[in-house]
Amino acid sequence: MAKILSVFSLRNLFFMSVALNLSLILRFMNEDGERGLTVLSWHKQEFGTDLDGENRKRRRPLFSSDNSTGVGDDDDNGRVVNLDHGDPTMYEKYWQEMGEKTTIVIPGWQSLSYFSDISNLCWFLEPEFGREIVRLHNVVGNAITDARYIVVGTGSTQLYQAALYALSPPDAPQPISVVSAVPYYSSYPLITDCLKSGLYKWAGDAGSFNIEGPYIELVTSPNNPDGFVRNSVVNRSEGILIHDLAYYWPQYTPIVSPADHDLMLFTVSKSTGHAGMRIGWALIKDREVAKKMTKFIEINTIGVSKDSQLRAAKVLKTVSDSCSEHSDRNGKSFFTYSYNEMSSRWKQLREAVKQSGHFSLPDFPSEFCKFLGYKFEPQPAFAWLKCEGEITDCESFLRSKKILTRSGKHFGFSPKYVRISMLDREENYNIFVKRMSVIKMKIDETCM
Amino acid sequence: MAKILSVFSLRNLFFMSVALNLSLILRFMNEDGERGLTVLSWHKQEFGTDLDGENRKRRRPLFSSDNSTGVGDDDDNGRVVNLDHGDPTMYEKYWQEMGEKTTIVIPGWQSLSYFSDISNLCWFLEPEFGREIVRLHNVVGNAITDARYIVVGTGSTQLYQAALYALSPPDAPQPISVVSAVPYYSSYPLITDCLKSGLYKWAGDAGSFNIEGPYIELVTSPNNPDGFVRNSVVNRSEGILIHDLAYYWPQYTPIVSPADHDLMLFTVSKSTGHAGMRIGWALIKDREVAKKMTKFIEINTIGVSKDSQLRAAKVLKTVSDSCSEHSDRNGKSFFTYSYNEMSSRWKQLREAVKQSGHFSLPDFPSEFCKFLGYKFEPQPAFAWLKCEGEITDCESFLRSKKILTRSGKHFGFSPKYVRISMLDREENYNIFVKRMSVIKMKIDETCM
Repeated sequence: MAKILSVFSLRNLFFMSVALNLSLILRFMNEDGERGLTVLSWHKQEFGTDLDGENRKRRRPLFSSDNSTGVGDDDDNGRVVNLDHGDPTMYEKYWQEMGEKTTIVIPGWQSLSYFSDISNLCWFLEPEFGREIVRLHNVVGNAITDARYIVVGTGSTQLYQAALYALSPPDAPQPISVVSAVPYYSSYPLITDCLKSGLYKWAGDAGSFNIEGPYIELVTSPNNPDGFVRNSVVNRSEGILIHDLAYYWPQYTPIVSPADHDLMLFTVSKSTGHAGMRIGWALIKDREVAKKMTKFIEINTIGVSKDSQLRAAKVLKTVSDSCSEHSDRNGKSFFTYSYNEMSSRWKQLREAVKQSGHFSLPDFPSEFCKFLGYKFEPQPAFAWLKCEGEITDCESFLRSKKILTRSGKHFGFSPKYVRISMLDREENYNIFVKRMSVIKMKIDETCM
Repeated sequence: MAKILSVFSLRNLFFMSVALNLSLILRFMNEDGERGLTVLSWHKQEFGTDLDGENRKRRRPLFSSDNSTGVGDDDDNGRVVNLDHGDPTMYEKYWQEMGEKTTIVIPGWQSLSYFSDISNLCWFLEPEFGREIVRLHNVVGNAITDARYIVVGTGSTQLYQAALYALSPPDAPQPISVVSAVPYYSSYPLITDCLKSGLYKWAGDAGSFNIEGPYIELVTSPNNPDGFVRNSVVNRSEGILIHDLAYYWPQYTPIVSPADHDLMLFTVSKSTGHAGMRIGWALIKDREVAKKMTKFIEINTIGVSKDSQLRAAKVLKTVSDSCSEHSDRNGKSFFTYSYNEMSSRWKQLREAVKQSGHFSLPDFPSEFCKFLGYKFEPQPAFAWLKCEGEITDCESFLRSKKILTRSGKHFGFSPKYVRISMLDREENYNIFVKRMSVIKMKIDETCM
């Protein structure tokens, strides 16, 4: 009897808690502070599905009122955890701890002109930012910068398009084929074919590409979504390569040698976590290619935000300083901090996956990292999770558990796979990992 | 004999002067301060000609060594005055005088996320910036904002492309025609045809457009390059209009009524002079068009720099505040200041043109400006100058006088015309106007 009473009071407490949460969340939504609601977003914000503010507004209360209906009946309030897009909010904490070091002050009269440095081929590159790019690559040892042109872009997405523009033959009778090995970054096909360009055309999986003639191959290394180190796969003389090295940083993968390719793309979004800046850069060997890429960005957006370039310069400087001021292992340098964070997250996830028995993750070989000075396995920015057994649509399955991920089908691959962002805020990440265990129990209970 | 001697010593002096200038300029170039050289730049930096850092470097001494050869032998050192592109550095002075009012401080941990407001259709629009856009339009009375969607872009150039993407039928057998009445903004053809899109295609002058079926017409009002207020000219039922209102601000033209079109483009570059921010905005009636424009910017650059949006919000706020804090005529409000500046520059130019007798400028009707509360003639951001008489290539003629302008041919018009930026720094503008008089004297001397 005492046990029944105790159960009832627990249930009462639970419902009271739900009611309180609901009212708090509704109040929060009525305020202007929409920023705090990222975790409630049910929607695929990034490429793939439609962005629809009104629908989101309409549906969010539904989701909020769902709080007590299903999974995660512990302390996560059953809320939707959105790990679909790789929003790098994980890094906020580090930058908060850095305090004033990366604060930037821009007076109203600064940066009025379109031009940053008219003596530079890339005339809209802020010289300070250019210097910090070179310094950071030299500190980390992840890319050769000697005898390279630097072109800045509004994120590496714009630079990818600039590269396509620069590398496509201008007067070919047919658009040049653009390929990448599956699973490839889900946005590549959409970006490539968006304007039905007569210069280039998405041609899918590089592994099965068999059209004669020139082609462009995209090599993303470490790869998005699966985290593996990659090389080109077509290997024909008429191939032109673009290396997307957004994730070639020591928190994600061992730095084995400085990358030395013709055209390499990087971005602050994934290196330091400042996605809102929209800043990327390309290192380019060939002068004419660099000129054409600069031309594309001139035509597309007449340059790149100076404010964000100046801010990015300060952030990169702080990262380089943090590496030289501290030993690698004392947790103060940016990469040691972020390496440790990623390491801990991957341990948590592998443990949860092991416990569940319903999922699997890629295994990576250990390599020696010349920057950090020790051997480790890659710990990518995304987990490429496979639903084992009879679950054929892993994304839908996890969605029913209020974990939003991106289906393998968007990456030219099987829907048994999903891509899961490992870069969300700690609170959300912890709910996600915890919920994986809850899912496991639920499945077991259903099976029993 | 005395005359011959006098000629020889003049020639000697001339060569000495050349040598001195050359050495000074070479020394100047060896220093790092390339920014100070804007005025020396001979090159068409904006669309139309190739950007080529090395060529610029190579050729600059050539131009510099010309310093004493011809025009401007007073106090301007015969330097090249580049008024080809509309770099709005004129506004620097005002913002310097505003001091700390528009200074922005951004801590390193701010704006890491891709998202600004997930409840908004345009999820990357900073809410603060959206509010200041609405406020400024209400203060100035130059555009209806009620029942409009706001989409932010990396300058209005990106928004123009977003509009083309949104307005083009996605599955038409032929790309839709894009037209604008001559003289049209020189960049439109280049931007439109840059990627050989299968969605849309530049079709030239709206005035002579006679292809049946749907089309997109660009209406730039006040027009770039000639400053006239414009309406659509094709006027067929299948026409879709884009209104580029970058210059519909009281410093350039009387505000006669709030613009009320389906799709209107604005930019901070021309309204407040902050071109380096790369921030523009669109006011859009139709929800589906706003959604598709947002989608384009998502695909093109995954949103727009948050740093610049936050800074733009502060600048727009300062402008609105300046209008409400001060009476219109006391010279402190941004628009009164910039109106007075433009007014004075146009007076100077018209005086110089009148004196010369070799050029002409458009005449504009006076209109009552509801914002400033008085009648005035438009005083555009560009002067659309015609070389009268036998000069057929006005751009080359002025280039020989070391005044760089943009030829009328780039605007689909006659090379007897050039576009001249009226927004350069005061020092350069004064040299330009002064040199116009010197040119006049030289021509007269030759004619005598």
